[in-house]
Amino acid sequence: MSTMQKIFDSFQERQARLEQSENPLSHGAALIEGKISSLYEARIPILDQGFLHSDLTYDVPAVWDGKLFRFDDHLDRLEASCKKLRLKPPMSRDEIKQATIDLIAKSGIRDAYVQLIVTRGFRFVREPASSDTPDSNFIYILVMPYIWIMPPQLQQIGGEAIVARTVRRIPPGAIDPTVKNLQWGDLIRGLLEAQDRGSQYPFLTDGDANITEGAGYNIVFVKDGALYTARKGVLEGVTRRTVFDVAEANNIPVHIDDVPTSLAFEADEIFMCTTAGGVMPITKLEGSPVGNGEIGPITKLIWDGYWALHYDPKHTVEIKYEE
Amino acid sequence: MSTMQKIFDSFQERQARLEQSENPLSHGAALIEGKISSLYEARIPILDQGFLHSDLTYDVPAVWDGKLFRFDDHLDRLEASCKKLRLKPPMSRDEIKQATIDLIAKSGIRDAYVQLIVTRGFRFVREPASSDTPDSNFIYILVMPYIWIMPPQLQQIGGEAIVARTVRRIPPGAIDPTVKNLQWGDLIRGLLEAQDRGSQYPFLTDGDANITEGAGYNIVFVKDGALYTARKGVLEGVTRRTVFDVAEANNIPVHIDDVPTSLAFEADEIFMCTTAGGVMPITKLEGSPVGNGEIGPITKLIWDGYWALHYDPKHTVEIKYEE
Repeated sequence: MSTMQKIFDSFQERQARLEQSENPLSHGAALIEGKISSLYEARIPILDQGFLHSDLTYDVPAVWDGKLFRFDDHLDRLEASCKKLRLKPPMSRDEIKQATIDLIAKSGIRDAYVQLIVTRGFRFVREPASSDTPDSNFIYILVMPYIWIMPPQLQQIGGEAIVARTVRRIPPGAIDPTVKNLQWGDLIRGLLEAQDRGSQYPFLTDGDANITEGAGYNIVFVKDGALYTARKGVLEGVTRRTVFDVAEANNIPVHIDDVPTSLAFEADEIFMCTTAGGVMPITKLEGSPVGNGEIGPITKLIWDGYWALHYDPKHTVEIKYEE
Repeated sequence: MSTMQKIFDSFQERQARLEQSENPLSHGAALIEGKISSLYEARIPILDQGFLHSDLTYDVPAVWDGKLFRFDDHLDRLEASCKKLRLKPPMSRDEIKQATIDLIAKSGIRDAYVQLIVTRGFRFVREPASSDTPDSNFIYILVMPYIWIMPPQLQQIGGEAIVARTVRRIPPGAIDPTVKNLQWGDLIRGLLEAQDRGSQYPFLTDGDANITEGAGYNIVFVKDGALYTARKGVLEGVTRRTVFDVAEANNIPVHIDDVPTSLAFEADEIFMCTTAGGVMPITKLEGSPVGNGEIGPITKLIWDGYWALHYDPKHTVEIKYEE
């Protein structure tokens, strides 16, 4: 993590400038039914099935230092999720792309968490198509300042995780976790348990003694120089894919398979990964140090590689901000 | 079901009168942040965690022929659900009661589906309490014309159900189904499968060869004069409790236990039950007749008893409509 200080320092500088902005959208912006508004004033119809039955999918690309990262990969996943749920966004892929880029530019936010949410709209799946209710799905686009699931200060020493014991992850046979969704009932139980136990980061099992994922992040274990992460019952994270890319470039073997809970307690290093925070070291598990209790060399290498790719033109789209 | 014709006829009369109403709330009304609006115009903040993580609970009492049915039982369950999710509605029980009754009265809807939704509000459980975001939960109250999961015409001959094979019910260890929730991912997959197979009514298993519940309804099987229904992995329905009350009054034994899938195929009668439709006979399962394919005597008896209780002052609150 030789680059950590530099990455965080330059982020803090941009953040300080953002906080001085007088652009009303600089706190967050939303595009809803063709209208742009401040995120804090944005409202949606209560009758949207996306609220009434959480019948929706979404994706979260991020903007880092004025550049959208792996936007096409996020759009690919969003399209695949829509297909699985039989949703059709009311805009084409190119229109979504352009509207998102425009909204980011208008907001002036150079480090942004972006949410593209496609909902069922007014018509419930139970209603026949002949019903009065129009048969079209909705899309909501949100742009807000970058979110850190693990704050920069904590990333420098690593966080503490627990293996949740009062809740298990929803099995894929009930809700398919590869379709990114907002049905967080199990993850919220995990977060509450973690808080009760003095942690912020729950790891959920599959109910069959394997680790799956946490509340919005994949989990990667390092053992004897190789990475281990769950194959099933988890979101196929774009951040995790970037972790695999960095590992491959550094000849670190990656095992995508069942991850027995016992491995978590034998790991040399642990990190979590997600768009909202990147690569997040875990140095304590259930009160005991992971490895020697310090951020390990492979985590550091992945961390540097992950952020370096945010400046690689192959993976980024430069936003042209209105000045 | 000697009373069916009378019940449906009088409902149709009231319905015809409602359709002629010029009250703008007669299509549906919502109470959101202290303001009453037409349901179709009602909007909620997109930043409500009730939308952003489906972090909410709700309950559905109904009004029948101008009388709220078992309102206190629904409020009891709502309170218990809030407690389990650590939610605190921003109104007291008495205030919720009064606001609901007032909204129904204002709408003029004499047969209503009522939704009380308590959401986490602006603050995500991950955010520390010291955060800028106010630490209070939201309540939304919706009143709309009565919803029939099985329409009156179909109740007269019975519907066709399937046992879903592409999806299982979320296990209670992941999301507790006794906390009524809108995380319908599994139920929606069930509905889509049912539609693909020419049915509207999926029965979901627990993934361990037991029947749980369907998309918004409990399921009751009749075999050799006794009722069988799932003990675990299901909502503890208020309508189902009324079914038990009617059964008890008629000396019909009730078994609340695991219900093996095989029992579904050996049942003499099957019915579903929910506030949105009452007692709904299933006369065909996976293309084969249930029993002799006609609505059976115990289903009929339960049907009559269920609707009779809607006129029992012990269970009802009379609404005073503005004329």
